[in-house]
Amino acid sequence: MFEHYQSVIDKRVDEFILDNNSKIDFEIIQYILELKGKRIRPSLLLLAVDLFNGDINDTVDQAVAIELFHNFTLIHDDIMDEAPLRRGKQSAHLKWDSNRAILAGDILFAYANSLMSNCSEKYISNVLKVYNQTAIEVCEGQQMDIDLENRLEAEIDEYIEMIRLKTSVLLACALKIGAILSNAKQNDIDLIYDFGMNLGIAFQIHDDILDAYAEDLSFGKQKGGDIIEGKKTALYFLAVASATNEQKETLNNSSANTSSAQRVETILEIYKTLNVKEKAGLLQQKYFNKALHSINGLSIDETNREKLISFANSLMKRTY
Amino acid sequence: MFEHYQSVIDKRVDEFILDNNSKIDFEIIQYILELKGKRIRPSLLLLAVDLFNGDINDTVDQAVAIELFHNFTLIHDDIMDEAPLRRGKQSAHLKWDSNRAILAGDILFAYANSLMSNCSEKYISNVLKVYNQTAIEVCEGQQMDIDLENRLEAEIDEYIEMIRLKTSVLLACALKIGAILSNAKQNDIDLIYDFGMNLGIAFQIHDDILDAYAEDLSFGKQKGGDIIEGKKTALYFLAVASATNEQKETLNNSSANTSSAQRVETILEIYKTLNVKEKAGLLQQKYFNKALHSINGLSIDETNREKLISFANSLMKRTY
Repeated sequence: MFEHYQSVIDKRVDEFILDNNSKIDFEIIQYILELKGKRIRPSLLLLAVDLFNGDINDTVDQAVAIELFHNFTLIHDDIMDEAPLRRGKQSAHLKWDSNRAILAGDILFAYANSLMSNCSEKYISNVLKVYNQTAIEVCEGQQMDIDLENRLEAEIDEYIEMIRLKTSVLLACALKIGAILSNAKQNDIDLIYDFGMNLGIAFQIHDDILDAYAEDLSFGKQKGGDIIEGKKTALYFLAVASATNEQKETLNNSSANTSSAQRVETILEIYKTLNVKEKAGLLQQKYFNKALHSINGLSIDETNREKLISFANSLMKRTY
Repeated sequence: MFEHYQSVIDKRVDEFILDNNSKIDFEIIQYILELKGKRIRPSLLLLAVDLFNGDINDTVDQAVAIELFHNFTLIHDDIMDEAPLRRGKQSAHLKWDSNRAILAGDILFAYANSLMSNCSEKYISNVLKVYNQTAIEVCEGQQMDIDLENRLEAEIDEYIEMIRLKTSVLLACALKIGAILSNAKQNDIDLIYDFGMNLGIAFQIHDDILDAYAEDLSFGKQKGGDIIEGKKTALYFLAVASATNEQKETLNNSSANTSSAQRVETILEIYKTLNVKEKAGLLQQKYFNKALHSINGLSIDETNREKLISFANSLMKRTY
């Protein structure tokens, strides 16, 4: 449903790459931007503009700013996580080197700030308040993620807080900025933010479930990839919370001398015993319901409300 | 002459560290901020506010934002340059690790943006225009620096452009933002920027000269340190521009099997033959004169003009 937004965004991204007359070698920046994720974050900004009857032509720079910021975090996160792949292609720090990747990330962040500030004086203060706060929170989320990866147990609430900061607040921020730039009412601005935040959390839990249980995964992913990599997910933290000591040992012994397939099977059996899939499903539903609740409160016309509900459902119904 | 400014800045930096209630471990951030450089950049912002009769109490957040931004670049540059020391102490990426240092830098940049935006709506657009442009340029400067380090020859103008971007524009930006926030006239805003930029270039060339020729270096530096490290300085590029092939070979053969002291002596002899010290001195004077010329054009009272001239002179007269 975002095809139109995507093409508007891609056009502006291309201009950004072509128009720059800086001394910077844009090779890495072009590479990461043209791996073309689904442009979900900037699309959400434009969606909010449409919902609140703004003019998307006036907000493309802010949408692209969100996309540049997101790509800055991807480049730096991939360095920190030593991730070999990004969207199925070699990560920037491996295709070039870590130093160039650090600097390319910094430059993307700087350009994101610049594009974000390129808006009407009427809104700039409010827009930057949410954007700057979000940028800090996303960094906090990355720090929490690193910390959680090094811990064997944590309350599921800590995990939820981590994905809220690392992933959800940027979705919420995109929607909120779209609403601010469309002169939406304060109550609507707050509700659309909450919608994005809760939907983002539901989406991430859904992602964790799919990784372990989906039969038909998208390109670049493998079933049980998180288990094989020993990644700490919602399923993991839900499992350790009620696991026996023996089960805990198995859950954490990711370097055990078994094949990947065997390892996935063993862990999924523990998950089954502990009802982890159901618990995660309930958690996902809880946040999804919160998101739907926010939609109901929005003062938008019914066609737009349907559109938003259908978008939310489409995110949760994907099976890949 | 900046003692008063420094104490105002240090107080706000301390508040920033203490007040934060984020999930982030502020250990690295506190470490780098408390290594206490001379706080020259934020002091320049407050100096400009005084020159143009603004209220420094209204501009401390922007001054500290400049300092946070500067420290972000120091942390990331030290990773890229594999620098073991910063201000005589262990660099952040060695005291902790590269991942934590990358993230600490990102967080400092994010907080810098937030503090910078925390200003009156009347000025925010203009302030952010110069700040964001400067942030991009500083990154460009770092890229040029990396590129130049990998080249054997380059026009001295390329080197000047690199130090302009990497160092000078941030000094100029600090002064300009102080002037904007004090409601200075546009002509004064432009002149104080040019002053900072040219003074910054003169200062950096002076630094290159001191590194090779000063007898009494400050803590953490050694005479000829740049030569020993094979760092490409103004002196180096001025030398290769007129060197014979044999001299070029010596200039570039930094890993030759000689002691550090011998190496410094050999290079300084080549510099002497090629009049490099004099050439660098002339270049420094050229940019210093440009800076003085800008001071003359400023519509400030004569006491303030004297103050600014005396500050500029003090920077150029240091021998350490």
